[in-house]
Amino acid sequence: LNHDKDIIIVGCGAGGGTAAQFARKTDRKTSITVFEKGKYPQYSKCGLPYAISGRIPNVMDLIEFSEDWFKKSRIDLLLEATVEKIDPAKKIVYARKNNKIIEKSYGSLIICTGAKPSIPPIKNLFIGDKLVDGVFTLRTIDDVESLIPYVKKGRQVVIVGAGLIGMEMADNLHECGMRVTIVEALQNILPNNLDEDMSKTVLEGLPDDISVFTNHLMTSVEHDSGRIKKVIIKNNETGEEKTINADLLIISTGIKPETKLAEDIGCELGVTGRIKVNNKSETSIKNIYAVGDCTEFVDFITKKPVPVGLGSIVVRQGIAAGINAAGGEYSLPQGVLQTATSDFFGMEIGTVGPTPASMRNQRYISGKFQGLSLPEYYPGGKPITIKVFADEKNGKILGAQAVGDKAAQRINTFACAILADMDVETLRKLETAYAPPVAPTLDVVTLVCDIVSMKIKRKRQ
Amino acid sequence: LNHDKDIIIVGCGAGGGTAAQFARKTDRKTSITVFEKGKYPQYSKCGLPYAISGRIPNVMDLIEFSEDWFKKSRIDLLLEATVEKIDPAKKIVYARKNNKIIEKSYGSLIICTGAKPSIPPIKNLFIGDKLVDGVFTLRTIDDVESLIPYVKKGRQVVIVGAGLIGMEMADNLHECGMRVTIVEALQNILPNNLDEDMSKTVLEGLPDDISVFTNHLMTSVEHDSGRIKKVIIKNNETGEEKTINADLLIISTGIKPETKLAEDIGCELGVTGRIKVNNKSETSIKNIYAVGDCTEFVDFITKKPVPVGLGSIVVRQGIAAGINAAGGEYSLPQGVLQTATSDFFGMEIGTVGPTPASMRNQRYISGKFQGLSLPEYYPGGKPITIKVFADEKNGKILGAQAVGDKAAQRINTFACAILADMDVETLRKLETAYAPPVAPTLDVVTLVCDIVSMKIKRKRQ
Repeated sequence: LNHDKDIIIVGCGAGGGTAAQFARKTDRKTSITVFEKGKYPQYSKCGLPYAISGRIPNVMDLIEFSEDWFKKSRIDLLLEATVEKIDPAKKIVYARKNNKIIEKSYGSLIICTGAKPSIPPIKNLFIGDKLVDGVFTLRTIDDVESLIPYVKKGRQVVIVGAGLIGMEMADNLHECGMRVTIVEALQNILPNNLDEDMSKTVLEGLPDDISVFTNHLMTSVEHDSGRIKKVIIKNNETGEEKTINADLLIISTGIKPETKLAEDIGCELGVTGRIKVNNKSETSIKNIYAVGDCTEFVDFITKKPVPVGLGSIVVRQGIAAGINAAGGEYSLPQGVLQTATSDFFGMEIGTVGPTPASMRNQRYISGKFQGLSLPEYYPGGKPITIKVFADEKNGKILGAQAVGDKAAQRINTFACAILADMDVETLRKLETAYAPPVAPTLDVVTLVCDIVSMKIKRKRQ
Repeated sequence: LNHDKDIIIVGCGAGGGTAAQFARKTDRKTSITVFEKGKYPQYSKCGLPYAISGRIPNVMDLIEFSEDWFKKSRIDLLLEATVEKIDPAKKIVYARKNNKIIEKSYGSLIICTGAKPSIPPIKNLFIGDKLVDGVFTLRTIDDVESLIPYVKKGRQVVIVGAGLIGMEMADNLHECGMRVTIVEALQNILPNNLDEDMSKTVLEGLPDDISVFTNHLMTSVEHDSGRIKKVIIKNNETGEEKTINADLLIISTGIKPETKLAEDIGCELGVTGRIKVNNKSETSIKNIYAVGDCTEFVDFITKKPVPVGLGSIVVRQGIAAGINAAGGEYSLPQGVLQTATSDFFGMEIGTVGPTPASMRNQRYISGKFQGLSLPEYYPGGKPITIKVFADEKNGKILGAQAVGDKAAQRINTFACAILADMDVETLRKLETAYAPPVAPTLDVVTLVCDIVSMKIKRKRQ
């Protein structure tokens, strides 16, 4: 039997599921098998925080493609099936399901093994190999189901890590009436998305009853009969310690990629410790693709390796891997823009470009503008602040950060400009859509570019 | 006395006011004089419909730059001063104010004479040279003040012309409780903005109690003691006539440019009967600029002359004219994108690119996609439909039409892509911002490009 065209996908997260879907679209006939170690087919991890507050009424709503959908698409989805070994010479995958080993040949293999939560070294966090009762990470539907009984009005939750997910958790648990404390080790909240000045704008918009400790490490926790009671945090500068009561502790301090299967077969890992892929989602081994949180790709601007983490990127990698594995042709742009957004406590955030830390290695000029979403004479305009980064030599747009009205769609315009290698001088003259109840004659999108453009000209003189 | 640097601006609409502002920014010292025949300094014409319903509480709120602002900026603003003659050889402007002639020399002149309403040939519309009582056009603050007493709950208003302004008037008068009938001579509403299929989406979203007659000409009106009573409309195809009661008749069928002053001095007019300007807002006469509704420029895509009418373009022309007249350097892109938006009856519309009529002369492939503003699993997603036009040979994006959630900001992304000469194949891979409460992993912005891209590939095969 010829298995040259058979596709095996390891992992049915957003990456694996999307890859399966696009492989099927590309080749109506070929055999496609997906091994997923968990209980559920493709669901949205990004939606998990909203299933806690009930904004998404049922956590099962997060399942985007049902088992039935896979059946109808003639894709063999094996749930609770763990791939234990890959033989790249013989092109065989060995998976365990119900304590039986399944052996399956492939022509193309797509590795979407994802990641698990990264847990910082906090004293007393574990009892044996288990997290103290009341301590949670949030990666799976099961996590949400275990967490919900701990969500009670008036109780105290501490969230470690003020990234996008930490802030989303804060919003959703606050919505449930919990008293929320956020602890972040770095200087400002959303450190991977916003500069300090922009994150301050967000901080000022948080409800008064949210406590935020930036520049604080969580050093240890205290429990009572195995149940979380207190956390101890330490000021990075002064060393001062503080004890906070906690009925619930959420750890959202990033992820650790699951790369063992790929490493075992000799797939090249990159400097971030993830599987290196190119813009076709190809790994270093022919006919083996990788997608998602277990991979690294390059940043569009810096061309330096970056860990893949955003759902938007994962899905696009899945499209590329699925189409290419099925014999089609699909190339992504030469790097990721890292366009990201969120909305919490009524504030919309949008960012695009290298993270603030890697932007610091660029020679850029930045400018910021705060304006209104509507002309001044029209009631109801909402604030929108945008900060833009441009190459100090040629004015090319490198990145943008936005907080406020329609931040995400405004950031998409910057993403388009970056993809087009556009400079601020061109973008500042963009003819944006104007009508009194919709947007001002000159949108903040172009006004902020005016500022950066003038700064660059002044520097050149 | 040397007047080489003195700037005179004729007309203080959005174009003239903006030109004055940017001339002053460019040269802090030079003499700037603005002659305005009306009573008010720069105000927003686009905001007038909203001052009728009270969404803008007071029509005087529309004044964007007060007389005081002009004074503080050391710009001589002469209101109720009509420029009667220009002598381009001697570089002198003659204006009449309070029945006295003011003679003023200039180095640079900026003509912003605007336009007046264009009134179609409707029988019995005038008594003498005055419109029948209860018939209005909407161009000035005075128009709003005269119209307001006619706005009464339960009364019947007929609006001729279903362009953006006609639809905005319909929305605002409906908001006031009036019974609204819209009459449009062409096949569909918003004929200068939307294709028939897209305008149908808008039509379906109108409240049930709005009557719309497309493909109908208004042939005559009937009045009683000089006051409007009925209008008679005729079906363009069948010739069938219909009489409609009307307590108020609004005429919003476009504008006639005011070009006499420019013509008298030999400024070249273009094929649209307007003053021809380039991307620096220069006319055919050295040191004479023109801005706004009295001008024509070229479309960015077709490079063919188009009348300037959108406030967003007028303001950008004003920036260019003001800076250049004051000795600076400012060039607009090589043509207008015609980005436009509006919001009525809870629907947001956004368009960019040549009008549907001129698009028909291009060889394009179009595609349409209707999706949701949020992932399917997140409650509250709103519909957004986008239609995209791309060059059938090279896939370059020519235009886009959007109806629904954040249509304007989504259209700005297309405007940016057009300005960058981007093709659908590139834009479809744009990494858009994603988060469950904000936008789906694949935005309609890119999904619609997938469709057009596939259509183009199929055609090539």
